[in-house]
Amino acid sequence: MNTFGYNFRVTTFGESHGPAVGCVIDGCPARLALCAADIQPLLDRRRPGASPLTSARDEADTVEILSGVFRGQTTGTPIALLVRNRDVHSADYEAIKEKFRPGHADFTYQAKYGIRDYRGGGRSSGRETVGRVAAGAVAMKYLAEKGIAVSGRIVAAHGKTTPEEIENEILAAKAAGDSVGGIAEITATGCPTGLGDPVFGKLDAKIAGAMMGIGAVKGVEIGDGFAVASRFGSENNDGMTATGFASNHAGGILGGISSGQDIVVRIAVKPTPSIAQPQQTRDIHGNATEISVGGRHDPCIVSRILPVAEAMLALVLIDAMLGQEKY
Amino acid sequence: MNTFGYNFRVTTFGESHGPAVGCVIDGCPARLALCAADIQPLLDRRRPGASPLTSARDEADTVEILSGVFRGQTTGTPIALLVRNRDVHSADYEAIKEKFRPGHADFTYQAKYGIRDYRGGGRSSGRETVGRVAAGAVAMKYLAEKGIAVSGRIVAAHGKTTPEEIENEILAAKAAGDSVGGIAEITATGCPTGLGDPVFGKLDAKIAGAMMGIGAVKGVEIGDGFAVASRFGSENNDGMTATGFASNHAGGILGGISSGQDIVVRIAVKPTPSIAQPQQTRDIHGNATEISVGGRHDPCIVSRILPVAEAMLALVLIDAMLGQEKY
Amino acid sequence: MNTFGYNFRVTTFGESHGPAVGCVIDGCPARLALCAADIQPLLDRRRPGASPLTSARDEADTVEILSGVFRGQTTGTPIALLVRNRDVHSADYEAIKEKFRPGHADFTYQAKYGIRDYRGGGRSSGRETVGRVAAGAVAMKYLAEKGIAVSGRIVAAHGKTTPEEIENEILAAKAAGDSVGGIAEITATGCPTGLGDPVFGKLDAKIAGAMMGIGAVKGVEIGDGFAVASRFGSENNDGMTATGFASNHAGGILGGISSGQDIVVRIAVKPTPSIAQPQQTRDIHGNATEISVGGRHDPCIVSRILPVAEAMLALVLIDAMLGQEKY
Amino acid sequence: MNTFGYNFRVTTFGESHGPAVGCVIDGCPARLALCAADIQPLLDRRRPGASPLTSARDEADTVEILSGVFRGQTTGTPIALLVRNRDVHSADYEAIKEKFRPGHADFTYQAKYGIRDYRGGGRSSGRETVGRVAAGAVAMKYLAEKGIAVSGRIVAAHGKTTPEEIENEILAAKAAGDSVGGIAEITATGCPTGLGDPVFGKLDAKIAGAMMGIGAVKGVEIGDGFAVASRFGSENNDGMTATGFASNHAGGILGGISSGQDIVVRIAVKPTPSIAQPQQTRDIHGNATEISVGGRHDPCIVSRILPVAEAMLALVLIDAMLGQEKY
Repeated sequence: MNTFGYNFRVTTFGESHGPAVGCVIDGCPARLALCAADIQPLLDRRRPGASPLTSARDEADTVEILSGVFRGQTTGTPIALLVRNRDVHSADYEAIKEKFRPGHADFTYQAKYGIRDYRGGGRSSGRETVGRVAAGAVAMKYLAEKGIAVSGRIVAAHGKTTPEEIENEILAAKAAGDSVGGIAEITATGCPTGLGDPVFGKLDAKIAGAMMGIGAVKGVEIGDGFAVASRFGSENNDGMTATGFASNHAGGILGGISSGQDIVVRIAVKPTPSIAQPQQTRDIHGNATEISVGGRHDPCIVSRILPVAEAMLALVLIDAMLGQEKY
Repeated sequence: MNTFGYNFRVTTFGESHGPAVGCVIDGCPARLALCAADIQPLLDRRRPGASPLTSARDEADTVEILSGVFRGQTTGTPIALLVRNRDVHSADYEAIKEKFRPGHADFTYQAKYGIRDYRGGGRSSGRETVGRVAAGAVAMKYLAEKGIAVSGRIVAAHGKTTPEEIENEILAAKAAGDSVGGIAEITATGCPTGLGDPVFGKLDAKIAGAMMGIGAVKGVEIGDGFAVASRFGSENNDGMTATGFASNHAGGILGGISSGQDIVVRIAVKPTPSIAQPQQTRDIHGNATEISVGGRHDPCIVSRILPVAEAMLALVLIDAMLGQEKY
Repeated sequence: MNTFGYNFRVTTFGESHGPAVGCVIDGCPARLALCAADIQPLLDRRRPGASPLTSARDEADTVEILSGVFRGQTTGTPIALLVRNRDVHSADYEAIKEKFRPGHADFTYQAKYGIRDYRGGGRSSGRETVGRVAAGAVAMKYLAEKGIAVSGRIVAAHGKTTPEEIENEILAAKAAGDSVGGIAEITATGCPTGLGDPVFGKLDAKIAGAMMGIGAVKGVEIGDGFAVASRFGSENNDGMTATGFASNHAGGILGGISSGQDIVVRIAVKPTPSIAQPQQTRDIHGNATEISVGGRHDPCIVSRILPVAEAMLALVLIDAMLGQEKY
Repeated sequence: MNTFGYNFRVTTFGESHGPAVGCVIDGCPARLALCAADIQPLLDRRRPGASPLTSARDEADTVEILSGVFRGQTTGTPIALLVRNRDVHSADYEAIKEKFRPGHADFTYQAKYGIRDYRGGGRSSGRETVGRVAAGAVAMKYLAEKGIAVSGRIVAAHGKTTPEEIENEILAAKAAGDSVGGIAEITATGCPTGLGDPVFGKLDAKIAGAMMGIGAVKGVEIGDGFAVASRFGSENNDGMTATGFASNHAGGILGGISSGQDIVVRIAVKPTPSIAQPQQTRDIHGNATEISVGGRHDPCIVSRILPVAEAMLALVLIDAMLGQEKY
């Protein structure tokens, strides 16, 4: 299932070392001003090769709009977005093509499909998120016109919370051939009340699914999240005033429907599973073996995931916005 | 959106104080042995009125199978399950019908629809979960035949972790006209490898959405969850051996696809928002006011949510199982 | 797949001789005035037992609204509608339970599911359409508020086109233990322009699928239908004037999108396959045998199908209306 | 809605005079042998410029596989197929860009979206079907492995039924600056029993929707179609023998489920609406005007639609096949 959304439907395609990655957006409202320059900056932000803290893979990631835009405006027809892959070092993967990398999807893809494109993780690569970020950029353009803004930040990495500490932890892990995990927080401001549907279409359920569907995410919180488990109801309820709310423990969502307050989401990101240190694993023939994952990897994936998480939140919100307008 | 699932589709209906609650299951495989006695025990388990720790509402919750079963076997056609509401004290709600209960969906439903059935929370009531639990019982019957079992337990309430402490915390909160939150863990054993789909159909994404879509849930973790954010990759990766895995930090899912290990999920449940203590709120006319929520409420909702969370995990798993068999 | 529609989703359930039939409507707009009296007259119209031309089965078909309506208005939550089955003569079917009735779904259901409720055709019975007609009544209530009306008429039966001839053909067929086919035309007036979506969501495609999905329908035409195959483009194109169209060969739909003209649909209905005359068939053990289908059957099903076809057109239209309002 | 199918999901994109057309296939089984040479011949067949009977637009229509195939085999991930547009004569359309072409979607697209790519019909152009035919080729590859073959033929054009007469009618219409309609028949052989789902997922309903969703199609018949309306039940029922059926009036589908007989479908295709003869119409400012549609157009579109109709039938069948394997 490579389609996300019900009203604003995004289908992504592409493998890490195949000819291209991209997406098709179906259901984008007509007459939205849109050009490649609206999308490119967000792709640049998720792009590898930008800092010593991230992977050395160098991709221009230039996006081409193949359809759905006529003279600078969307037409209501599908918007196909294409990014060619260029800097593929597939040879890096020949040595480990028969070994299952721990913490990766190698084993499960092989078990499910009986075949996998082992080059760079194939479809399970973070490179798949190019399509998500491109679609998210279109969504953000629409949301911005409605006064809604989505932004994210790194809250912690390897238990540290200040930028300097975080950078130190990451560089130390890199030097040790290791990696570290972290936490990111994504916030949406300017949301109207009424987004989301009761029961199985709850806005927080959609957000949780969207976030947990990002590779490496292992936990999702809305508002105060796990902290509520240690509270009294009298502490946790957000009292109301004549004009709004007295607090926002709920993270902007009540009964699965947006309350008009800021929507606040936090995600736990696991340490990059690709590490240079030797690890115990198995090969496709069932033999125990050892693996050391070379190639070009991020020692901490949180900063790379940030634009993806923002894109996913934007996709959830535009989907709810377009569903909302039905009534 | 009141339908859950893609292959095993469950549509629930009903309000807390309306004539009935229930569900329609579409896509259940034919020739599954099924009768009301397969469903009733799970409904009895979620039923209120069973202990001083839960709501005093007393509902027999007798389920009737309206369709889809012929001589004790499913026929592949929709299975409609009906439970009549009986012990409705709607008068309890007349006094507060114009006030938005803090922490509830009253305000957001009103904002979204311009109307709401205020009696017992209407559709946003926990009573809606009768349909989920009934459908989950059917799913579990099928899963059991495949060797898959789902079970849950309370891990913590108000920061305490032993049964005695938990009971004390809940009774103390009840005595104070207050409530407490908690954490539950749900586990599935016996799952085959290969469940779930890449990218937007990931098994953990489906689980996260399913869990966050239960009222009062504010956080979801798969496997070690938020703990991974403080780890090194070398600690967190689950090494493989010739026959399996050396550990299960991942909670049984890699790249969104089941690995064959136990699937482990934890959810954070907020304190019941209905409390007797007075709270500041607003009425539907925009006036600030105070509210004390009478009626019959659980001082801690975790134990009531457990069978619902188990049902939702079962629904995710059967949906993935039926999707899996396509290949 | 027992759910119809994308925005206004109707899930039907129930077998001919089971406890009940009905439907759940999800996505109905809130604040629509609705009570059982809005639905009952349409059920009465499709009801058997009303004339010597139709089946003698006598069902009161009293509808009960189980959810989704509060004090005479819809609330935006699922509307469950229930009709109990009462006049079931299941014994009629014991004699033929192992024989496949020609022209019926007996053989294919058995092949697909390995089990079937043979009593009255089970799920494949026309009785399943109770849920469709009930849902269609809700749709029509909404459409009427928007100025849209749906109506149908019998165009032909057994090649005859006047009411008297048609009645004679049907009575003659009944006397001979036989049945006849016919043609119905369904029209929607007052539709706005813009309903339907390009490519795979075309309004005429949705209508064609909806109509062909009614049991016994073997052909569907939009506008002039098969007659266009013998025309010149210069004859068939509907010229435009300053204020509208000069003709309506297209049947109100261009490029899959409504043009604002009347939507005109015709369906071909096969002769009722249940006939008293002996027919050659097979039993479930693979033996050749003969069958004479007793029970209570309509000698011509067109009049019974009319309210179903109207309901289906209404369901397509409300679904398009609610989708349309997204933009 | 630009996605077709439930299990084998095809999303098409692209406009007639935009950069490219194509599709993304999601849900194709893994380990199907596939390369561009499997797809190209079917694209060549629908390609314009091949005969004096068809449009003079000359497109190489070379397909590129962008994803989902690894070393000649599908991997279970999305298959993106791309065809660049080359021979675009957009200038042809400048003269008529403000006029609504009769019989085309110009008026309805403008009404729905408030914008349209008027060059060559934009998204409503027959060129959109490149994506359908490419996807259909993949489906046919899979179906062929299961012994299923889909083929079509022209049954009639402008009321004539022999090849010579048909060619004469078409050439005469072309010479007169006019066009003619026709009928095509598409057949699938080798289908197993059990394809399709009861009620709203009937195989014939899916086929009818698929066919009516092809531009210019105004009628669909399954099996004997409209002829059944003039029959007795005793004539129309397909009797069964110990080993099969005595006839196939039903066209291979009973109760919406395949019977194992040949599936037979006929479609009515309207005359190409683009004709050189002057027609009365309106412009986007609401003024009455006249139009003569230049450009390069087929005087009879039936032969161009044939491969599209075959593709659509193949898409319906593979979708049902993959759904079927769930049980």
